[in-house]
Amino acid sequence: ELRFDPKEHQHLRYNPLRDTWVLVSAHRMKRPWSGQVEKEEEDQVPQHDPNNPLCPGNTRANGEVNPDYNNTFVFENDFPALQPNAPDPGYNQHPLFQSKAARGVCKVMCFHPWSDVTLPLMTLPDIIKVIDKWAELMVDLGSTYPWVQIFENKGAMMGCSNPHPHCQVWASNFLPNEATLSDRCQREYLKTHGEPLLLQYAKMEAERQERVVVQNADWLAVVPYWATWPFQTLLLPRRHVQRLTNLTAQEREGLASIMKRLLTKYDNLFQISFPYSMGWHGAPTGPYLKEDQFHWQLHAHYYPPLLRSAGVRKFMVGYEMLAQEQRDLTPEQVIHLGNTSNLTNNSKKKL
Amino acid sequence: ELRFDPKEHQHLRYNPLRDTWVLVSAHRMKRPWSGQVEKEEEDQVPQHDPNNPLCPGNTRANGEVNPDYNNTFVFENDFPALQPNAPDPGYNQHPLFQSKAARGVCKVMCFHPWSDVTLPLMTLPDIIKVIDKWAELMVDLGSTYPWVQIFENKGAMMGCSNPHPHCQVWASNFLPNEATLSDRCQREYLKTHGEPLLLQYAKMEAERQERVVVQNADWLAVVPYWATWPFQTLLLPRRHVQRLTNLTAQEREGLASIMKRLLTKYDNLFQISFPYSMGWHGAPTGPYLKEDQFHWQLHAHYYPPLLRSAGVRKFMVGYEMLAQEQRDLTPEQVIHLGNTSNLTNNSKKKL
Ligand SMILES: O=P(O)(O)O[C@H]1O[C@H](CO)[C@@H](O)[C@H](O)[C@H]1O
Ligand SMILES: O=P(O)(O)O[C@H]1O[C@H](CO)[C@@H](O)[C@H](O)[C@H]1O
Repeated sequence: ELRFDPKEHQHLRYNPLRDTWVLVSAHRMKRPWSGQVEKEEEDQVPQHDPNNPLCPGNTRANGEVNPDYNNTFVFENDFPALQPNAPDPGYNQHPLFQSKAARGVCKVMCFHPWSDVTLPLMTLPDIIKVIDKWAELMVDLGSTYPWVQIFENKGAMMGCSNPHPHCQVWASNFLPNEATLSDRCQREYLKTHGEPLLLQYAKMEAERQERVVVQNADWLAVVPYWATWPFQTLLLPRRHVQRLTNLTAQEREGLASIMKRLLTKYDNLFQISFPYSMGWHGAPTGPYLKEDQFHWQLHAHYYPPLLRSAGVRKFMVGYEMLAQEQRDLTPEQVIHLGNTSNLTNNSKKKL
Repeated sequence: ELRFDPKEHQHLRYNPLRDTWVLVSAHRMKRPWSGQVEKEEEDQVPQHDPNNPLCPGNTRANGEVNPDYNNTFVFENDFPALQPNAPDPGYNQHPLFQSKAARGVCKVMCFHPWSDVTLPLMTLPDIIKVIDKWAELMVDLGSTYPWVQIFENKGAMMGCSNPHPHCQVWASNFLPNEATLSDRCQREYLKTHGEPLLLQYAKMEAERQERVVVQNADWLAVVPYWATWPFQTLLLPRRHVQRLTNLTAQEREGLASIMKRLLTKYDNLFQISFPYSMGWHGAPTGPYLKEDQFHWQLHAHYYPPLLRSAGVRKFMVGYEMLAQEQRDLTPEQVIHLGNTSNLTNNSKKKL
């Protein structure tokens, strides 16, 4: 009888935040790759581009002129997927043809006046300003909207069409699918096990130290046990914090520092400005502000598309789309992300 | 008060097969695109390449020599994500660190001896041979495995690393996430509404003719009301058929013909050999063969990645990964896919 070795033997792992399974087939990394190779991005982004609608002082598509901003700058997305006053599709629908109203706002938030920086290349005080602005937007938009999704698409590979460092904030009058799912999973976990899911998880990962990439007094970044994307990470506070707005000044400093370290490690992995989509999940807002949300723990997901090198991505295609997600190396194997103490940024993009 | 217009006003649509919602923001197509453009694939694939492990007569990575096959050819994937005898990870696990055994087989199936053809360029008799082989594999692997996933990744953009026309067949000892979800949705629909979900849906789409791309006596291809990918389609039999193995000879002929027409329309859309991932979903097999599966209706999903042109894809990134899928045009707007009676293949790839 063979002894189970997660690096050699495929197995399924359970994602308790989504109630799904991922197929881990680590031996697949041995297969040769002769498929599509992405072109590496040239990093000749100028610090200021007079034609870039995100730079200070420039005019945007709708004729508005950006202020001469010094740190963050927030404006309404000129091509929003969500608008505040779309009419209702109406009722009396067949169960197979159901639609409902979607209302909201889409904002764009620049991180810095310069186009040639990224979060890991920014100073800690400037990253703290980004975090403070995130919290501010959560207060403003979260006062009425039940879900405020802060997310960053970084790199052309992730559908980002503007190199200027920025994220987006989409607030909606509904709980999106992923929010509904995560809410249900965390709620059921608390009910069954008596402790918030991610609070317990952070404690256990901090003890085990098998999947921790970076940590400090208030935060922990791990490759979660159930990671789907090869270099996926989960960023967690150690304290029970339900929303970005509840972070103390010290926790914001710690967050700025751990983000800088995590993203530097990403950049150093393949010596490029690492592409990813990231975003924050916290307790719902608007009408939910009045309800008990003890089951929620604030966290950020990082989903980077790469697999083997700067040019070879993990394709989530046929089997993944039709059956189930599959990964080619174990979460424990990617921990070398954390094995260098070198925190100088080695990406080709440099200040 | 504004009148609701699905082309102008964002709204949510319900996907009854996955119990999720998609955000439809058709007005987003107006936004300019300055992001990543995919390089168009050059179609200089030779009919026979002595170095391609999928061609007749060639030697594969493991030293085996392919037969001089005339139509389809099936072999074991040399780098399988699933193997028949992986050991069990063991029991007594913490609820946050759960794993279980995954066993199965991965096969590759070549459609044709020539590397320079695709399904829509093949003759009807040759496409019927593909369908017959699919059914044969379902019988063989389905005799023991509960789920047999037939899928095709077509095009480099979809992670396909070999231009030779082929699909894959992964059989597993577990029901994958998507199968579990679809099974639950179809089961509950039958219970509540007294008719199999997709049987009723096909009837209603056939009546409405608002989203039908191609149809014949036995089959229907529609852009489903809840389509996520811009040019996603759903291929459905008109009769209640639970599995590929239950198709009559006439239905297989009809399927070959509708596949050829559907894929030709895809190729003609942007005048390229259209990339996609596709796959079949039918009632589970193995131990489920003995159970009542009346709620199941056989169907194929086609998920093409493109949005605006041969080079501009739809990115399912930040908001889609973290919150909810979003599309930039309504399913009814892409129906021009069906508005040409020209069934000559206009892709650059030609016989
Ligand atoms: O098996 P292949 O063709 O080498 O690999 C392709 O399809 C698989 C199944 O969808 C994916 O897991 C891989 O990421 C993709 O590159
Ligand atoms: O809003 P952007 O940056 O133009 O668009 C990008 O992010 C959106 C939200 O994740 C996606 O829907 C788009 O496909 C992507 O290109």
